[in-house]
Amino acid sequence: MTGDARKSFSLAELAERFGGNVVGDAATRIRQVAPLETAGPEELSFLANRKYQKLLASTRAHAVILDEEARDATALPRIVCKNPYAYYARVAALVNPELMPEPGIHPQAAVHAGARVAASASVCACAVIEEGAEIGDGAVIGANCFVGRGVRIGRRTRLHANATVYHDCVIGERVIIHSGAVVGADGFGMAMDEGRWLKIPQIGRVVIGDDVEVGANTAIDRGALEDTVIEEGVKLDNQIQIGHNCRIGAHTAIAGCVGIAGSTRIGSYCQLGGSAMISGHLTIADRVVISAGTLVAKSIARPGTYTAVFPMSPHDEWLRNASLIRHLHEMMDRIRKLEDEIKKMERK
Amino acid sequence: MTGDARKSFSLAELAERFGGNVVGDAATRIRQVAPLETAGPEELSFLANRKYQKLLASTRAHAVILDEEARDATALPRIVCKNPYAYYARVAALVNPELMPEPGIHPQAAVHAGARVAASASVCACAVIEEGAEIGDGAVIGANCFVGRGVRIGRRTRLHANATVYHDCVIGERVIIHSGAVVGADGFGMAMDEGRWLKIPQIGRVVIGDDVEVGANTAIDRGALEDTVIEEGVKLDNQIQIGHNCRIGAHTAIAGCVGIAGSTRIGSYCQLGGSAMISGHLTIADRVVISAGTLVAKSIARPGTYTAVFPMSPHDEWLRNASLIRHLHEMMDRIRKLEDEIKKMERK
Amino acid sequence: MTGDARKSFSLAELAERFGGNVVGDAATRIRQVAPLETAGPEELSFLANRKYQKLLASTRAHAVILDEEARDATALPRIVCKNPYAYYARVAALVNPELMPEPGIHPQAAVHAGARVAASASVCACAVIEEGAEIGDGAVIGANCFVGRGVRIGRRTRLHANATVYHDCVIGERVIIHSGAVVGADGFGMAMDEGRWLKIPQIGRVVIGDDVEVGANTAIDRGALEDTVIEEGVKLDNQIQIGHNCRIGAHTAIAGCVGIAGSTRIGSYCQLGGSAMISGHLTIADRVVISAGTLVAKSIARPGTYTAVFPMSPHDEWLRNASLIRHLHEMMDRIRKLEDEIKKMERK
Repeated sequence: MTGDARKSFSLAELAERFGGNVVGDAATRIRQVAPLETAGPEELSFLANRKYQKLLASTRAHAVILDEEARDATALPRIVCKNPYAYYARVAALVNPELMPEPGIHPQAAVHAGARVAASASVCACAVIEEGAEIGDGAVIGANCFVGRGVRIGRRTRLHANATVYHDCVIGERVIIHSGAVVGADGFGMAMDEGRWLKIPQIGRVVIGDDVEVGANTAIDRGALEDTVIEEGVKLDNQIQIGHNCRIGAHTAIAGCVGIAGSTRIGSYCQLGGSAMISGHLTIADRVVISAGTLVAKSIARPGTYTAVFPMSPHDEWLRNASLIRHLHEMMDRIRKLEDEIKKMERK
Repeated sequence: MTGDARKSFSLAELAERFGGNVVGDAATRIRQVAPLETAGPEELSFLANRKYQKLLASTRAHAVILDEEARDATALPRIVCKNPYAYYARVAALVNPELMPEPGIHPQAAVHAGARVAASASVCACAVIEEGAEIGDGAVIGANCFVGRGVRIGRRTRLHANATVYHDCVIGERVIIHSGAVVGADGFGMAMDEGRWLKIPQIGRVVIGDDVEVGANTAIDRGALEDTVIEEGVKLDNQIQIGHNCRIGAHTAIAGCVGIAGSTRIGSYCQLGGSAMISGHLTIADRVVISAGTLVAKSIARPGTYTAVFPMSPHDEWLRNASLIRHLHEMMDRIRKLEDEIKKMERK
Repeated sequence: MTGDARKSFSLAELAERFGGNVVGDAATRIRQVAPLETAGPEELSFLANRKYQKLLASTRAHAVILDEEARDATALPRIVCKNPYAYYARVAALVNPELMPEPGIHPQAAVHAGARVAASASVCACAVIEEGAEIGDGAVIGANCFVGRGVRIGRRTRLHANATVYHDCVIGERVIIHSGAVVGADGFGMAMDEGRWLKIPQIGRVVIGDDVEVGANTAIDRGALEDTVIEEGVKLDNQIQIGHNCRIGAHTAIAGCVGIAGSTRIGSYCQLGGSAMISGHLTIADRVVISAGTLVAKSIARPGTYTAVFPMSPHDEWLRNASLIRHLHEMMDRIRKLEDEIKKMERK
């Protein structure tokens, strides 16, 4: 986070690139983005959530991004725009350009003679690329990555160190795959035969669309017979498990530790909270929101938020109440009996 | 999934290899397996579940595998056998032979002079094998794998790229270990001593039996004093955590994202659903089925299916009902009080 | 666990190093530690939990560690001390010294000319260390590890094989990072903008204090704007996910498969049970214990144990009771109605 050598931009220059209206001194120069509480000289902050508006009074940011409604909530130089959070994201990317390795193949990488690597791509040390793989323009294959036989990696896609892509998988453009992610391992398919599990060959692939991000240590299994498909713009956090034959709809965002069992289809623009678990062979509609920790065992046909979480209590209180869960049926019976008795008494 | 160069087999040849009876044209040749819905020319499909029987009418498969009961449900050339799903698994393996690297040690691998690698084994690029390790006949150590000091890898076992096996662990024959799996890291053992955690050396090993499969990014910790044992035929999906000193019984299948805390013993032929969590120091009998998302906090002595899942609802409905969980005790009290009052009224 | 070549120590020597009082033959020599049930010749056992005291009668250990209260519970040579479990941990470490690679850089490692590696540090085969990284005295960078640009690794810290540390992260002294762990991947930050997710650059770091242990396949994301901080003495088990901007207080222990969403602060000396899930932007006080499998959706201000787990039942019983969860509100309404009717009847 050393900002010294970082290039600076005036608010006018930012507005020219990203739109929005400058209010106040358009020559104000900024070098970095920061939250309202901690921003200082040459730093640009933003107000994306009304509940932080009071911080505008005390912030030491040199300028802020805010929306039309908050336009006059500060006297600081400011950029007024429709979506301050997205605007901040764009400025943050501008002033913090990603550090990219030099194009070319590191002498300690192991690239098969039958692989095709674009001249503008980078293959880092100890990366291994097998026969028939194709690495697109400007792609980066990080240190110690593995790219299997016949894999296609699209333009400007980046595999961070220690990522693994099994044979024949297809990765789109501008995809980011973080370290430890495994794309295309065998799905969990087997048949019980005379007391032993027989492995079912997993002959499908994983096909990942453009602009997808795959978090650290996430695993996406290849299909059994057909492909596992991650559509464009899907964002996957860390430690996620996606079973074979799943299809995740475009622009769906899935938080950490989620498990999705095989052959389930998730719609577009869904949001799955952390540690949610989706059973296999289900269909989840577009724009469904699943709360963190929720187990989904049935298909969901309508947009909306769905939840299944036991409410937390101090342990003793939990113990008292949880023990009654096993007696709910009996409680219901006792209520019915009371109702009957009261009816009988009233009749008398 | 390009099938062009794939070898073809007649139904007669398949029956000779795998048994079953051919009904219809035994010279029908197939090159690939496929589901009933999507199968086409030279493809063999299967009916393993009665509920898909209606698809037989419309399938464009050239032949199907089915059981005695479904024998006459189609006029297509067919193989009639006892277990169509297992039969399909065998044919799928025959027509989709696993691609294996050439035997030998890649020049960019790092194999210690004191390791023993069978001549028929393959050690891929950037794999690291330490002193005293033994790699059996036909085994494959994938790219960027790590095999620690003194590890023994059995015959025809395959470690996919980026798998890790810590020192002294023992892996049986025909085992498959997927990418990102970690076998033999230290168990989570420590003693609190004057405000600081003191690490307890983990001096046991992990011992994995024959025909085990370990999914991507699964971790199996080494024992604290004794060994962690995975018995033969166990199938582990992705993202599983198995704590130190556990023993998993033969042919048990564990779905993705399951956690098993230390010193727990799971019986044989158990099935654990995705995201289940088993506490430490428990004993689970043979043939126990744990539903997905279930937390098991007590030992289970009898076979059967066990479940602990909060049922999912639309969020508002959940909110209304979940808030009452904390009042179950009070609800029970009110029921008891009503019962008392009714008794009193009846006595009058 | 071959103990043949292992050095032996007399009880007197142990007491000199670690304190405690020897009762019985102080010349008794031991070579290894073992549990009471399985200990044999030259093995030292320990009694850390009163419930195992009966095993003292039958153990074949040559000596035992126990506390003042249990001092006379055996006639075996023994070391009497305040904390037998911690004492055992110290002896176990003494008789099982960690095997360390030779200092120096393996010829197949890839260390950037602009990285600084202490002469006493070890860099194993196929490890990749980028520009500006600093590796402290006695540190070990395991095979196939990745250490990004500008990373600082403290003295005597050990990265096991296939661990990944992204650029600019700071790791303290005597830290242990297990295989497959990923430190410093991008946090899950994005802004929705006209139907597409816009990535928010993650420009913070991960800063890990001294004496931390990070389990296999655990992921700790870098901060969005500020740092993600793991304070000294924190112990993280396997498969854990820690989101961006989190702060985990000193000496907190977190069991396997736990997920902690972004910007949450966990206090010191907390204990989180396996598969617990903590939502984002929460504050958890010091010395809070979260039970396994519990979802925490609200901040916790007081020490204590907190739980949220649906109790397990045989599946049929679960089905009967779980279906009533969705009718709790109705049950409550019926109870209220009954109370009203009884009041009305009493008034008559």
